[in-house]
Amino acid sequence: MKPLENLMGWRESIKVFDATLRDGGLVNNFEFSDEFVQKLYLANLKAGVDYMEFGYKASKELFDPNKFGKWKFCDDEDIRKIVGNNDTDMKIAVMADVGRCDYKNDIKDKKESPIDLVRVATYINTIPQAIDMIEDAAKKGYETTVNIMAISQAQENDVKVALDMLGKTPVDCFYIVDSFGSIYPEAMARIASLYLEYADKYGKKVGIHAHNNQQLAFANTIETVGMGVDWLDATYSGMGRGAGNCYLESLIGFLHNPKYNIYPVIQFIEKYINPMKEQGIKWGYDTPYLFTGLLNRHPKAAIDFVNANRKDITELYNEMILMD
Amino acid sequence: MKPLENLMGWRESIKVFDATLRDGGLVNNFEFSDEFVQKLYLANLKAGVDYMEFGYKASKELFDPNKFGKWKFCDDEDIRKIVGNNDTDMKIAVMADVGRCDYKNDIKDKKESPIDLVRVATYINTIPQAIDMIEDAAKKGYETTVNIMAISQAQENDVKVALDMLGKTPVDCFYIVDSFGSIYPEAMARIASLYLEYADKYGKKVGIHAHNNQQLAFANTIETVGMGVDWLDATYSGMGRGAGNCYLESLIGFLHNPKYNIYPVIQFIEKYINPMKEQGIKWGYDTPYLFTGLLNRHPKAAIDFVNANRKDITELYNEMILMD
Repeated sequence: MKPLENLMGWRESIKVFDATLRDGGLVNNFEFSDEFVQKLYLANLKAGVDYMEFGYKASKELFDPNKFGKWKFCDDEDIRKIVGNNDTDMKIAVMADVGRCDYKNDIKDKKESPIDLVRVATYINTIPQAIDMIEDAAKKGYETTVNIMAISQAQENDVKVALDMLGKTPVDCFYIVDSFGSIYPEAMARIASLYLEYADKYGKKVGIHAHNNQQLAFANTIETVGMGVDWLDATYSGMGRGAGNCYLESLIGFLHNPKYNIYPVIQFIEKYINPMKEQGIKWGYDTPYLFTGLLNRHPKAAIDFVNANRKDITELYNEMILMD
Repeated sequence: MKPLENLMGWRESIKVFDATLRDGGLVNNFEFSDEFVQKLYLANLKAGVDYMEFGYKASKELFDPNKFGKWKFCDDEDIRKIVGNNDTDMKIAVMADVGRCDYKNDIKDKKESPIDLVRVATYINTIPQAIDMIEDAAKKGYETTVNIMAISQAQENDVKVALDMLGKTPVDCFYIVDSFGSIYPEAMARIASLYLEYADKYGKKVGIHAHNNQQLAFANTIETVGMGVDWLDATYSGMGRGAGNCYLESLIGFLHNPKYNIYPVIQFIEKYINPMKEQGIKWGYDTPYLFTGLLNRHPKAAIDFVNANRKDITELYNEMILMD
């Protein structure tokens, strides 16, 4: 059992990370209005959020800018239109995917950019490319994290090698990413323990990005907080791909740090998140996501099912079980 | 961390308890069709569920039978119409609330009844009445559990005294009941540890009944399973008062016991649960329930808000915070 102080107190080192635009952008093709983004920025400031992720730094060679909202690309000038010089305590983050961005050209020197942190998203088999991206971003003056996706499908020995390789880079934080929402808190505790061991060895932080396929995104997040994981991803009402993420309002409700404030989060949900849901933008726990979580699979089949308004969950389960 | 066997293996002593009709009845006034109940019984049999709760044994003096569905009262003959002699391995349960039932008259001898288990629901301040009900039911030949409700508002010292008193009765199982869905897994682990200590002392089992106000019903349930809690309440798609309960399909997906089968649960959800939701019967996580969970309050204000189709969650939060 964790010490009672962990329940009643708070740690200065905890960082709340709002990933609404980035993971939520996967739901609505990054088509957020400027008003939405502006008000989200203000809500995050009032709520005491530490980092706000604006979206991806995707390559315009690989992705047609006419087919996505601008937060798929996060041009510096688009961010600046929202944040000005961002003379606040909140930092600005973007995500760069291995193999999907032209980081050498698209990520400018920190001096020229409103961005503070570059999050490098990688699978376990593309760590060398991730390292090149981390080194490039660090050299340009950014904080960096490495987000090893789909950790539920990686072998523990590979993870150990990866963390040793990454430990030697300038990366600031190792992120545990449960892309498929398939990890139970007991197993998450084992993973966090491994990450914390390597983080300790190399002087890094550990973060968590959870998905809600089994309604465990919040539970997994707070399981690892109690163990020493410090960087906590969350989104407003869990907005994110498929079953979505850890709910920011739940997380702020849980943390006892007087720095955080749930009230602006509630106001933003009422005014901007719930109306979006009512307009038919879909995310959040639903039975099909339980299936992909249980089977440790990418949520694509479940997302397609939900978006097609299919109701035949038994047939979906048959399709998935017979698919192997 | 829990031993790895707990993750990969299974325990014979675990009992899955379907509370759909009883806690779900609080959502739809116990107005389930006979077909629904019949098919639920068959689905539970196929799924390997150990106990099926049919509803309450409420007093017809206190509650007008014309104003509730029949599962508010659970007459033996109504249960028998569904289960016949119930020549199966699944046991039949009902709940009896302290102060809301005429147990001396309405609960017949086990020999005359299809019921196997009487669950006595009590608050911490009505333990003596609960004990009288337990002794009455045990004398008549029933298994019994005691479900101490709203445990998040009870003092630990009072709980200890209650468990000592209950330990000396014939009750088979102490139930942890997080009525307000306000308990975090870390705190739930402490409560389970206390209950298990007293259960061990008196040779009793421990059960858990969780609510989903903070999306922690499933997480809290599996947190305690890993510690030795054996009787696990769940409902189909979490159907239950307010934010609902632990999802039976999630729980069966988690348990590794080959006795349990998720497939009939999925079929039942498709055919009977989802259509009920589409007809407007409301339960499950929603922001107002997060508020009552965070504030450790009865969900009534949130239920009223949701049923009134109100959208002004900020105003609800104001009302609740200013209420004290």
